[in-house]
Amino acid sequence: MHRYVMTLSCPDRPGIVHAVSAALLAADANIVENAQFGDEPSRVFCMRTRFETDLASVDDVRSFLAPVADEFGGDLTVRAEAAVPRVLIMVSKMDHCLHDLLYRWRTGDLAIAIPIVVSNHADCADLVEGHGIPYAHLPVTAATKQAQEARLVELVDEHAVDFIVLARYMQVLSPELCARFRGRIINIHHSFLPGFKGAKPYQQAHDRGVKLIGATAHYVTDDLDEGPIIEQDVVRVTHAQSAADYAVIGRDVERMVLARAVRYHAESRVLLIGHRTVVFAGH
Amino acid sequence: MHRYVMTLSCPDRPGIVHAVSAALLAADANIVENAQFGDEPSRVFCMRTRFETDLASVDDVRSFLAPVADEFGGDLTVRAEAAVPRVLIMVSKMDHCLHDLLYRWRTGDLAIAIPIVVSNHADCADLVEGHGIPYAHLPVTAATKQAQEARLVELVDEHAVDFIVLARYMQVLSPELCARFRGRIINIHHSFLPGFKGAKPYQQAHDRGVKLIGATAHYVTDDLDEGPIIEQDVVRVTHAQSAADYAVIGRDVERMVLARAVRYHAESRVLLIGHRTVVFAGH
Amino acid sequence: MHRYVMTLSCPDRPGIVHAVSAALLAADANIVENAQFGDEPSRVFCMRTRFETDLASVDDVRSFLAPVADEFGGDLTVRAEAAVPRVLIMVSKMDHCLHDLLYRWRTGDLAIAIPIVVSNHADCADLVEGHGIPYAHLPVTAATKQAQEARLVELVDEHAVDFIVLARYMQVLSPELCARFRGRIINIHHSFLPGFKGAKPYQQAHDRGVKLIGATAHYVTDDLDEGPIIEQDVVRVTHAQSAADYAVIGRDVERMVLARAVRYHAESRVLLIGHRTVVFAGH
Amino acid sequence: MHRYVMTLSCPDRPGIVHAVSAALLAADANIVENAQFGDEPSRVFCMRTRFETDLASVDDVRSFLAPVADEFGGDLTVRAEAAVPRVLIMVSKMDHCLHDLLYRWRTGDLAIAIPIVVSNHADCADLVEGHGIPYAHLPVTAATKQAQEARLVELVDEHAVDFIVLARYMQVLSPELCARFRGRIINIHHSFLPGFKGAKPYQQAHDRGVKLIGATAHYVTDDLDEGPIIEQDVVRVTHAQSAADYAVIGRDVERMVLARAVRYHAESRVLLIGHRTVVFAGH
Repeated sequence: MHRYVMTLSCPDRPGIVHAVSAALLAADANIVENAQFGDEPSRVFCMRTRFETDLASVDDVRSFLAPVADEFGGDLTVRAEAAVPRVLIMVSKMDHCLHDLLYRWRTGDLAIAIPIVVSNHADCADLVEGHGIPYAHLPVTAATKQAQEARLVELVDEHAVDFIVLARYMQVLSPELCARFRGRIINIHHSFLPGFKGAKPYQQAHDRGVKLIGATAHYVTDDLDEGPIIEQDVVRVTHAQSAADYAVIGRDVERMVLARAVRYHAESRVLLIGHRTVVFAGH
Repeated sequence: MHRYVMTLSCPDRPGIVHAVSAALLAADANIVENAQFGDEPSRVFCMRTRFETDLASVDDVRSFLAPVADEFGGDLTVRAEAAVPRVLIMVSKMDHCLHDLLYRWRTGDLAIAIPIVVSNHADCADLVEGHGIPYAHLPVTAATKQAQEARLVELVDEHAVDFIVLARYMQVLSPELCARFRGRIINIHHSFLPGFKGAKPYQQAHDRGVKLIGATAHYVTDDLDEGPIIEQDVVRVTHAQSAADYAVIGRDVERMVLARAVRYHAESRVLLIGHRTVVFAGH
Repeated sequence: MHRYVMTLSCPDRPGIVHAVSAALLAADANIVENAQFGDEPSRVFCMRTRFETDLASVDDVRSFLAPVADEFGGDLTVRAEAAVPRVLIMVSKMDHCLHDLLYRWRTGDLAIAIPIVVSNHADCADLVEGHGIPYAHLPVTAATKQAQEARLVELVDEHAVDFIVLARYMQVLSPELCARFRGRIINIHHSFLPGFKGAKPYQQAHDRGVKLIGATAHYVTDDLDEGPIIEQDVVRVTHAQSAADYAVIGRDVERMVLARAVRYHAESRVLLIGHRTVVFAGH
Repeated sequence: MHRYVMTLSCPDRPGIVHAVSAALLAADANIVENAQFGDEPSRVFCMRTRFETDLASVDDVRSFLAPVADEFGGDLTVRAEAAVPRVLIMVSKMDHCLHDLLYRWRTGDLAIAIPIVVSNHADCADLVEGHGIPYAHLPVTAATKQAQEARLVELVDEHAVDFIVLARYMQVLSPELCARFRGRIINIHHSFLPGFKGAKPYQQAHDRGVKLIGATAHYVTDDLDEGPIIEQDVVRVTHAQSAADYAVIGRDVERMVLARAVRYHAESRVLLIGHRTVVFAGH
């Protein structure tokens, strides 16, 4: 038996589940896990289904499901569960999120492939190459930004990358790049958005005297720190800690939140309804 | 349109979802919310579905779904969403959980009916009657326990009670009563089970020096504090707090955990697989 | 023996603790609890000390400590622990925070006195008067606002009120009133500030698609939702919940956060360093 | 100026703070941070103070404070803040806690020295030696246990080790070793103690159907999983996750809880009152 994951997003109306389950039955598939959600304001229906069948290829499976997606005017994705997504990680100098993702990848706790890591600095080269992963050092200035992003796009193609993770990559991407990879770039921002956008969020949080600090993983759009939120979490702080302490404490939240967001996306658990995400976290 | 909630629990095998969705389609029903889970160790399949249809009665809806349940050898429940369950609350002297449930009931945040409150003490009579709810004072001693429980059973019948909530009721129920209402009595225990069973859990927690205290809502079985767990939560404590402080702090956790468990049960979100619960919390 | 609580805030320099402890020793006082903090950016030193002594009056105790405060140019507060602060609660129509505070007051879990509750609506009169507390219904319009606040000030004086709690009071106070009671008015805002200031924060949170919602208790200043933060907390939400669901879920966080903030202030655990609070929560 | 941390534990009676602050004043010391706690049941007083002075050696500082400790019959510890403690880490095969501690050590987030890592297996040698830290492979069988522990004691002496961390070391230490290093061995247990002692706690937790799993860092005593608790935390799980999933999810809690416990101990924030810990976490 082979396992597959499908997602479907379409206008809500009666019969969708029946049509999908009929197609799966026709494909001799057994549903292992299924989550659905009908969003009332937008009347959009979202569905994620894991199933097992004798069919050996995604194309065969798709041939059963595509007609249903067409009938209901939906977006369909199908992938073999065994085919782990290929992730390009971008980093600048701070390596705590990169280090964490590499560890989860190495132990197999996070089912992704990491064909390459890209950075605008050389700092993390040893860490990455020590894991047997190529490290592309692509410095960037205002003058070279266009060429640097062009090279990035080449790397995405060369390595058949499924999505990009900005693991504390401190450069703003061009609107063109954001548009090209819409819904395929995940960033970690070191604040509980929408609070403390922009630079030095821990200093901002300390100045404001908040009692909890947090981190936010979101899809990148050309509207900085405004992309659809995938995951967030917070941790308690006190007056006795400095902004520098917040940065240390916050690193644990950043890496946990980013790791969860990457897993959700890698497992096809995240669907988009306009600017909001539906996350079938598996509960 | 009328809204219904169905739950189905049966041995797992292909075709269940398709058969259910076919029956719902035949009933001109539109699925509003659907959650499923196939438990691998036990090979038990659980499903909860909310749907809307023109059918005006539970019997009509059931006539479409019962054949599916029979075919798959499953346990089926169907109820109209508008028909809120009738809950008998039992309490002794401490009223914080009772007080909280009454508030959620009065504001409509908790969709239940409370036809009667039963207590082995008179302390909470004013609070309950002040809400226009009858208060049955049923004192209990070793000698009168059998008669007291017999009267309780009469009250359950007289008031068409769907399930019982022990809101800090400090008497142990007889095995007969536990068996009669299996899966229909919810208790709140003031510890994070399986830690600190039995009496004075906050004192036990303080003596042990734990750093978090908690509460556990579970179905009552004749094995004290061992029933299937519905919900749990914890809160941080420190060396600077006494066992008496723990009791005050813990009250907030007790009432939150019990309120969530009652809501889950009232909304048919809890299914049993042997000794474990499946809680479709709605994520 | 009598118990007292003192707080001291002054420019940081060596010898403060020694001078205070010497004064306490001279007063035959035994320190029961002591917390200190030296804020490095501002070089402000904060101290809160609970102690017991045979001295029977605050004035007697103060006569020992005032010279120390004068020597170090500090702000000193001294109160008898048994003298619970007198709190004026203001509410509009939503009563969940009021209801919660009244319960904690009635059970003694929250050591405050509530001489009067003020509202711009009549809705909560029965709840308050049912607790034997007078209810002042002071409607307010743009035209009557000045007179209404003048009456409020009279009530504060008549009832010897120590501080004011806005338990979901939905009117903006005048800058004059904010200034008069600076650091003595606590408000609960139903968002995790600085996110979602102003009106309808739950709708804003739902529109933004955040994964956690929260509440913030802060001192009121004439800069709306910008006052010094005393306490905050959050709870997880999902795509499957509506903005209306958020409001229900958020009520539990609002009442917990407000209750903690009121307790911290009532127990003299909150000191101000400019715009930030030092909260000696007792850990 | 040099910074020092002192802890004092003694029978509670008036004058302790005054005597300590007088000694610190005599040493021209300025108190940077101070926490105190008087435990009512045991009448034990605990104090932790950070201060700065021109005195250049621990012995000089101790000469001012020792008389106070003698006068009050207390246990005194004094260390220079710059002198980070030397930690011997023990591990078996699972490396997630070791990996996490090494990262926090390398980045400087955790102010400890790691002179050597000891394991009963060879698995983690590359990871440790890759950090430039010697790795002592000390296999152990029932027959060789005594010799292996004797060698461990030699290593502790050779490397002037201050305390030992069992980072998922899966061997039970002999009562002699536990006694020799009483209060100086920290273990991480992968359950929320006192629940699920002994082997396979995640499987036990799954079988019991708890809704939160946790981890506990405690001092090792010869009473297995019963030592004084330093830190605990939990994370939510659901029916949809297997015992194997719990183990993966739990790793994040284990490493966070152990890292916090190691930091608390390394910063002299943990004092013992009988079987309970006082943790001056710095709030």
